[in-house]
Amino acid sequence: MPTGVGVAVVGAVSLVGEALVEVLEERTFPVAELYLLGDSEDVGHTVPFKGRNLRVGEADRFDFNRAQLAFLVGASELVSECHVKAVAAGCRIVDLSGSIPVKQQLCVVPEVNGGLLDSLPDQRAIASPLPEAVALAIALKPIQQQLDLHRVTVTACLPVSSRGAAGVKELARQTSELLNARPLEPRIFGRQMAFNMLAQAEAVDAQGYGAQERRLVEELRQLLDMPELAVSVTFVQAPVFFGESLIVSLQGGVEADMPALSAALDAAPGVELVESDDYPTAVGDAVGQEAIYVGRLRRGICDPREVNLWIVSDNVRKGAALNAVQSGELLIKDYL
Amino acid sequence: MPTGVGVAVVGAVSLVGEALVEVLEERTFPVAELYLLGDSEDVGHTVPFKGRNLRVGEADRFDFNRAQLAFLVGASELVSECHVKAVAAGCRIVDLSGSIPVKQQLCVVPEVNGGLLDSLPDQRAIASPLPEAVALAIALKPIQQQLDLHRVTVTACLPVSSRGAAGVKELARQTSELLNARPLEPRIFGRQMAFNMLAQAEAVDAQGYGAQERRLVEELRQLLDMPELAVSVTFVQAPVFFGESLIVSLQGGVEADMPALSAALDAAPGVELVESDDYPTAVGDAVGQEAIYVGRLRRGICDPREVNLWIVSDNVRKGAALNAVQSGELLIKDYL
Repeated sequence: MPTGVGVAVVGAVSLVGEALVEVLEERTFPVAELYLLGDSEDVGHTVPFKGRNLRVGEADRFDFNRAQLAFLVGASELVSECHVKAVAAGCRIVDLSGSIPVKQQLCVVPEVNGGLLDSLPDQRAIASPLPEAVALAIALKPIQQQLDLHRVTVTACLPVSSRGAAGVKELARQTSELLNARPLEPRIFGRQMAFNMLAQAEAVDAQGYGAQERRLVEELRQLLDMPELAVSVTFVQAPVFFGESLIVSLQGGVEADMPALSAALDAAPGVELVESDDYPTAVGDAVGQEAIYVGRLRRGICDPREVNLWIVSDNVRKGAALNAVQSGELLIKDYL
Repeated sequence: MPTGVGVAVVGAVSLVGEALVEVLEERTFPVAELYLLGDSEDVGHTVPFKGRNLRVGEADRFDFNRAQLAFLVGASELVSECHVKAVAAGCRIVDLSGSIPVKQQLCVVPEVNGGLLDSLPDQRAIASPLPEAVALAIALKPIQQQLDLHRVTVTACLPVSSRGAAGVKELARQTSELLNARPLEPRIFGRQMAFNMLAQAEAVDAQGYGAQERRLVEELRQLLDMPELAVSVTFVQAPVFFGESLIVSLQGGVEADMPALSAALDAAPGVELVESDDYPTAVGDAVGQEAIYVGRLRRGICDPREVNLWIVSDNVRKGAALNAVQSGELLIKDYL
């Protein structure tokens, strides 16, 4: 019996890639050999793993026959090519790239639909959905039936780390420029991000939506197994480094039984419910944690079938790296 | 015929009070005499008006018979007492304090329901509503009928200036503490505000709502003359100094005709509509301006009767000071 599997991480030099390697170590994921991969610019970087600094190799030249499991991080042509090669080599895949249409690849959030993998033993490639879909699905799964959920309206305040290390750097630089009264030079955000909210987190299409907003709708419908669920979504960019905040309004078909909803959330895996005399924040509670935090759970002012809540989650760790690693654990169960 | 009226500003030493005095000057409001008033701590402060520095006097000792119009800024016992005295003295009142129940005092947003004052010539005391109600009412009035509006779901990202000068100072201090790796000392926000979003902008009641969230529902229903409108509201606190950002989802009874909605907003007083190849931000567009800015106007992904939009507005100036002064102009029309 092997002691572990060969694991490839494509896109290892990135916030999510590095967090993923950290989580593999923390959870003592059964790694026989770890292959960190990237593009030509990443080659030579090192990422720490179990006391060693592993060098990043060129993904282009990697033989995916050496790995049994591949994590694909970040959307790029290189990652798409690796997806094809990894499939051809018979690798199992946890895809965090968001580049495969939702209907073509099962989205997995272990707390929500991890059980599906037992009934789909041939499932070799799965997607780890958007961090916002991970958080919403974990929070809504325990209450969707009780509420007879019809509609989800969500404002997701994304931190700059959703744009990777470059986003983090830019908010720090802009903030310091403003505080020191130096001229502001917006780069990746295109305008003032420090002390400002941006109406959208990405370019939008002719109908006014970003690709990730549309993806959220599909992923959430798939995760909750509610193909007809109405979802209204706005991703905005907030001047926050790490951790996302979601403002959520739910419409159900029945009057909300608040004590029952509280109890369901309290008992749910992956959820920390904060009672209404307090509330969680991304920076104060969620960042670095393995749960999502739910607060401000309350019935609508005008409609007893409406429920409002606030969710904070670590977009890099919980929403991406940890979810992917947990999904990877399910995917390689039969190897071990 | 008098050249102007005696104008009292209670709460003159505040962000809104000072902006209000500025707007009185800019709009050449017919001021015969300006009385700046405050509590004992404010006395002796000066506020510039028409090239002079006016000293602030003690509101407690002011004889409201000397003024024909009083602006009441900020919620406090003192302001409530002044309200009573000003009414007794026959003053007209523009109340920005939010301390009188909505049903007892007409809310006025000139672009929305200013015409009402013509049919209510005896109206002597009016309220200038919450900045968030001002912005929403201006944006929704032109489209409420076309949409057959049923429900408004709004996330309002409030800047720290909604907590006055102390809020502004605290965000600046916290930001600098964090950037300089000094220990963080939260005061008025009670936790880290810099680079963080807070789930609520004020204390909440047993049902989970803040007084201003409840007030918004009532003010918006009154302003739009829709007493049954369903409103779902969340006020969150953002690490932004000035200008509020509102994420709004509307549900109507008919399929949304987007070109017609665009045209209606484009033609509406007080609205700047930004087309979807761009979007406005609070800091970049709204702050210091006399209009609200609307962007990301789009139909729902899942529901053709849903319309989503983004609104930015200067909470201090447009949402409070300017709205109050414009309302004051309507209120004293018959004097001039």
